[in-house]
Amino acid sequence: MSREFAFIDALRAIAVSPAARGLADDAAVLELGGQKLVLTMDTLVEAVHFLPGDPPEDVAWKLVAVNASDLAAKGAEPLGCLKSHALGEEDWDRAFLAGLELACRHFRLPLLGGDTVRMPKGSARSFSLTALGRGPEDCPVPSRSGAQAGDLLWVSGTIGDSGLGLELLTSGGRVQTPEAGWLIDRYHRPMPEPALGVALAPLATAMMDVSDGLLVDARRMADASGVSIVITADDVPLSRALVATVGDGLEQRLQAMTAGDDYVLLFTAPAVNSAYVRAAAAAAGSHVRPIGAVAEGADIALEWQGQPTPLPERLGYQH
Amino acid sequence: MSREFAFIDALRAIAVSPAARGLADDAAVLELGGQKLVLTMDTLVEAVHFLPGDPPEDVAWKLVAVNASDLAAKGAEPLGCLKSHALGEEDWDRAFLAGLELACRHFRLPLLGGDTVRMPKGSARSFSLTALGRGPEDCPVPSRSGAQAGDLLWVSGTIGDSGLGLELLTSGGRVQTPEAGWLIDRYHRPMPEPALGVALAPLATAMMDVSDGLLVDARRMADASGVSIVITADDVPLSRALVATVGDGLEQRLQAMTAGDDYVLLFTAPAVNSAYVRAAAAAAGSHVRPIGAVAEGADIALEWQGQPTPLPERLGYQH
Repeated sequence: MSREFAFIDALRAIAVSPAARGLADDAAVLELGGQKLVLTMDTLVEAVHFLPGDPPEDVAWKLVAVNASDLAAKGAEPLGCLKSHALGEEDWDRAFLAGLELACRHFRLPLLGGDTVRMPKGSARSFSLTALGRGPEDCPVPSRSGAQAGDLLWVSGTIGDSGLGLELLTSGGRVQTPEAGWLIDRYHRPMPEPALGVALAPLATAMMDVSDGLLVDARRMADASGVSIVITADDVPLSRALVATVGDGLEQRLQAMTAGDDYVLLFTAPAVNSAYVRAAAAAAGSHVRPIGAVAEGADIALEWQGQPTPLPERLGYQH
Repeated sequence: MSREFAFIDALRAIAVSPAARGLADDAAVLELGGQKLVLTMDTLVEAVHFLPGDPPEDVAWKLVAVNASDLAAKGAEPLGCLKSHALGEEDWDRAFLAGLELACRHFRLPLLGGDTVRMPKGSARSFSLTALGRGPEDCPVPSRSGAQAGDLLWVSGTIGDSGLGLELLTSGGRVQTPEAGWLIDRYHRPMPEPALGVALAPLATAMMDVSDGLLVDARRMADASGVSIVITADDVPLSRALVATVGDGLEQRLQAMTAGDDYVLLFTAPAVNSAYVRAAAAAAGSHVRPIGAVAEGADIALEWQGQPTPLPERLGYQH
């Protein structure tokens, strides 16, 4: 068990409020005066969650986007955010603010407050954001634990783009194709869709965002729900840019499914409701695809070209 | 203008939502379904806001306490908190969690969520906490800007203890008197009183917490309210421990009034309501003292032994 995991386990013993959802969901859900307040907080650390050379506008975008992704996963309408900022060089901070303003406007998360701090020389900068949203009124706030046998598993976007973008960015070679530029942009500027989350919440039996890798996140959903999830690797949507860059075989698909940083929605819904699911996504201006099925049992399994195929050793980013 | 100040000014241009209160108050106030949600976020950075040798239990306590102090200043009943944690050594983190659990229980701020991150080697640790509270139902959430001519200025506790505690802690000499131990404890374990803030909110025309120094914070209130505030240095309450350690002259009082980290409430109320103010504080198990008066005009001024006395050059911690 990693240090991080052991620590989170110890935190769990403290976070006993039902609103904390056992620290096992994407966000906390606090009931307040008949409203459901959805709360999430994510931190980005230089050299851990972003590269020191990443454009500051993109770091700010990502900070807002990863939190917006958690709200989307809970079907929450964005309300606002608070940010803690570690001061760095003046130009860098100014560019960061420009990206922040853009992202706050895009994700409808007005900046409400926060803190600005100095760091000792030589310290990695870190930025925390707390985002607040209003949970759905007419249905429960979706959790990771509601998937049921008979459901289909869906994703709301292509998988692996951001991971491949990061790989291209760090591989050192000069990247000059338009596809490579697009993939790197997916790494720098994830595009979660809170409005899609709001539209899907009444239909989803379980919902979460894909942040650590499709396979590891699907396993978390299976574990939380006490079911088995079989993923059809053939059906996992890949972008044209990814296929053009690395191809479309099982190996590339496994790579994509374990890469992480996708910030798309992963959710389950009864198979009989598939037409409603597609219609709700279309009404939100988006497109969702079924990639697997939920059955009784435990854990996840993979199929490829109609046959079972072994899971890779590493399912994604493991804390 | 300092870097930090210039940056906060640039942030202000982004934070245009009325809920942000111009980033000029202790907390944001978001109206939600008939409720007033009070939101604050404070970050503590190692070697900036706490000493690397400070006991981890105390760092955790302080992290919760400084946020609870902001809620108190807005008369908000605590609801819960989210925390971002930078992992360090295992023993340190374990002790931190013990302090966190104690503080969350003391301040009635159940831990609802957050994030746990690794830091690159050699980085200062930093911890952010977002606290949520429910604002008063039957009166506005007090701001810093409501002080009016004819009001008295009050504080809810002794001033300068924490600053002197820090001085004793860093002065290097061995500290062996019980008074010194008590003063250092005031620095490590500030004791804001959210219940007192709740009790005072309906009576206060303006309210804030004293975090950067009584004088600089009073000037902020005067500026925000467009009034003059005259503080009677003789009436500023000092602890017996402080007086026993450094004495009780004007110089020591000026030192105390500019030291910061007090985390007591500073508020104004019409002079005619003084009996109600005292009664409300007593009902909340606390004791408040008038230390000045609000008049038309601008800025703050000091009196000592019935005579005007010049303000010190440095009023407190200036961002």
